[in-house]
Amino acid sequence: MKKSLGARTLAYPTPVWLVATYDAEGRPNVMTAAWAAIVCSKPPSVGVSLRKATYSYGSIVARQAFTINVPSELHVREADFCGMASGRDTDKFAKTGFTPVKSELVDAPYIAECPLILECKLSHTVEIGLHTQFIGEILDVKADPEVLGEAGLPEVEKVKPVVFGPEVRTYHGLGRYLGKAFAIGKEL
Amino acid sequence: MKKSLGARTLAYPTPVWLVATYDAEGRPNVMTAAWAAIVCSKPPSVGVSLRKATYSYGSIVARQAFTINVPSELHVREADFCGMASGRDTDKFAKTGFTPVKSELVDAPYIAECPLILECKLSHTVEIGLHTQFIGEILDVKADPEVLGEAGLPEVEKVKPVVFGPEVRTYHGLGRYLGKAFAIGKEL
Repeated sequence: MKKSLGARTLAYPTPVWLVATYDAEGRPNVMTAAWAAIVCSKPPSVGVSLRKATYSYGSIVARQAFTINVPSELHVREADFCGMASGRDTDKFAKTGFTPVKSELVDAPYIAECPLILECKLSHTVEIGLHTQFIGEILDVKADPEVLGEAGLPEVEKVKPVVFGPEVRTYHGLGRYLGKAFAIGKEL
Repeated sequence: MKKSLGARTLAYPTPVWLVATYDAEGRPNVMTAAWAAIVCSKPPSVGVSLRKATYSYGSIVARQAFTINVPSELHVREADFCGMASGRDTDKFAKTGFTPVKSELVDAPYIAECPLILECKLSHTVEIGLHTQFIGEILDVKADPEVLGEAGLPEVEKVKPVVFGPEVRTYHGLGRYLGKAFAIGKEL
């Protein structure tokens, strides 16, 4: 018999992604987001939900662009910091030591230290409630050569992404390989 | 120097969640989704993107409801299967051995064997491209008593959710605890 826990945002796993933007004055900023996912295959698109109160909200509206940066577990402290401080009064790039790189495709910076980044042009704005979902078309994905595997794709074990557990507020690394998708289910 | 990989749906981690629905005849069906996330805190809401070609698409439109079921890594084979077979010609509950339980809150079944489930009422439908994003308000979260920790919340280590790596098509378990969110970043 399952126990009812009420209406809340409890689901595992959620990502720990860094959303990077330029503000109206062209200053780079970064915030952490867990309410985010790939939302469409064609055009390849990613959605990220932000509260209107965040400094990044205005930057995405103004610049119509953002990048998604996947930090590795080496940067879990920096990622946590970027989810607490505000770009309104803190230079989070300076504080974390992250290096902003100007995207050549969209009006946003990406983070040099993150092994995997997505350059996104705003395509949809969805008002849901406390959060507004920004959907961006992914114009390019860039990865550090060190995380690429034999197929030329970034390997999950090398990227070492961070997983967030909402409400319990814990960060986790990735664990053991469980199997090949679109393959192991054929046994059934 | 980062390597450009083109415009594609490459981001880690993505969830492996099971979307359960009733079809027009009241038959329970389940499909696997990775293009999914929490999208709003108030009202607590989850988004899941489906292709129109899926059988579940019509069921969500007809019933205006779905459940999100978080499988544990014990059921990674069943989850993979539910992402390949179609409810149009396959009884996936029978094939997987999953047990559908009628939700008392929304017009959809949930999966008894999944340790964590979300009962959702459709609130928004977002046309993006190949995928349509269904946003559902989370009316309740239910969990198996065995996965609850001291605070009465489901512990990530006990739920043992599965992580999917798109494009590389690999499933992974959760790994080591990296730290406490809204805490470890304060060191900076």
